[in-house]
Amino acid sequence: MGRKGILIVVSGFSGAGKGTLMKELVRAYDHYALSVSMTTRAPRLGETEGKEYFFVTHEAFEEEIRREGLVEYARYCDNYYGTPREYVERQLEKGKDVILEIEIQGALKVKEKFPTALLMFVMPPSAAELKKRLVGRGTESPEVIARRLARAGEEAEGIEQYDFIVINDKLEECVGKMHSLIQAAHDAPGRNKEFIENMRKELEALQ
Amino acid sequence: MGRKGILIVVSGFSGAGKGTLMKELVRAYDHYALSVSMTTRAPRLGETEGKEYFFVTHEAFEEEIRREGLVEYARYCDNYYGTPREYVERQLEKGKDVILEIEIQGALKVKEKFPTALLMFVMPPSAAELKKRLVGRGTESPEVIARRLARAGEEAEGIEQYDFIVINDKLEECVGKMHSLIQAAHDAPGRNKEFIENMRKELEALQ
Repeated sequence: MGRKGILIVVSGFSGAGKGTLMKELVRAYDHYALSVSMTTRAPRLGETEGKEYFFVTHEAFEEEIRREGLVEYARYCDNYYGTPREYVERQLEKGKDVILEIEIQGALKVKEKFPTALLMFVMPPSAAELKKRLVGRGTESPEVIARRLARAGEEAEGIEQYDFIVINDKLEECVGKMHSLIQAAHDAPGRNKEFIENMRKELEALQ
Repeated sequence: MGRKGILIVVSGFSGAGKGTLMKELVRAYDHYALSVSMTTRAPRLGETEGKEYFFVTHEAFEEEIRREGLVEYARYCDNYYGTPREYVERQLEKGKDVILEIEIQGALKVKEKFPTALLMFVMPPSAAELKKRLVGRGTESPEVIARRLARAGEEAEGIEQYDFIVINDKLEECVGKMHSLIQAAHDAPGRNKEFIENMRKELEALQ
């Protein structure tokens, strides 16, 4: 079967460990390319241009919107965040599965534009474990933790729209699981239209 | 996540090697139970009651239809063929994934009754390879081969309704692939409603 890359959208509760999971996935297998978002917000300490984000001005970002250079974008707290299209398309062409980490609204927008995108939702093994991880970071105030838990509750409403849920219990097992799920997705009929069409033509020709 | 069994429907072109694949799948992993169909046709030489089929009279079969003892059934050439419900339900309860080998019409009926059923379509690597296998059996007349190829062409029209396509090239690889696909299917949100519902309740309780 033809192996074009799949666009993979990963969402999940804050504290579910998406970032670590995806870095490990990209490290462990060479099937994947991690998309880097573009943003107008200022770099934080330790963030590097082109690694965490591409940092651009408001004007540059709006120019990207105009020339349809973004797969999706959103505005939070007066800053833009978006996914540059060219990198994604180049990697898909090369057969890489491209991973975007975005929240549910963005995920559904991507699915509209790219119906063969695969949507994965990362969850902790339990809500109690999620709280424990957020508290354990030691960097967040009780208010922020409460807000994140409330936000998780809202996001949980949208899980049915995803193709797979991934329980992040043990990192290595979970990375292996994600890899299997993505590789399985390659075998859906909707991602193999050319193969099926060729088979039909061949069958006709043989009769 | 709760691990109730999934109902798996396997269809595919005659000559694609479904039977061998499924026997090997059940042998290689103990996740699976193979459903045995009930039929009114007479046993052929070498067929054993309860292995290839449960052989029953027309009256007994119609009694099963009346008491809703069948997951699905169909009538071909004056004989009934059907899937006994009790065995399927008992195995699913035990957490086994139950495999039914049925053609596309039956597959779609099962999907209607059991929306979480997983539909897999087995294909040869190419139409030419399919023809080669049918000819290679040496048991089928050119007319039968032509009819099977024509039938494959018709069945190919329905592939989009399946969840996964499975290319049967090398037996062992293909069995491993089927296993991965089925295990991936366990992680779809629609098959984990209880887990998601519990997570939502837990998150609410924590706030």
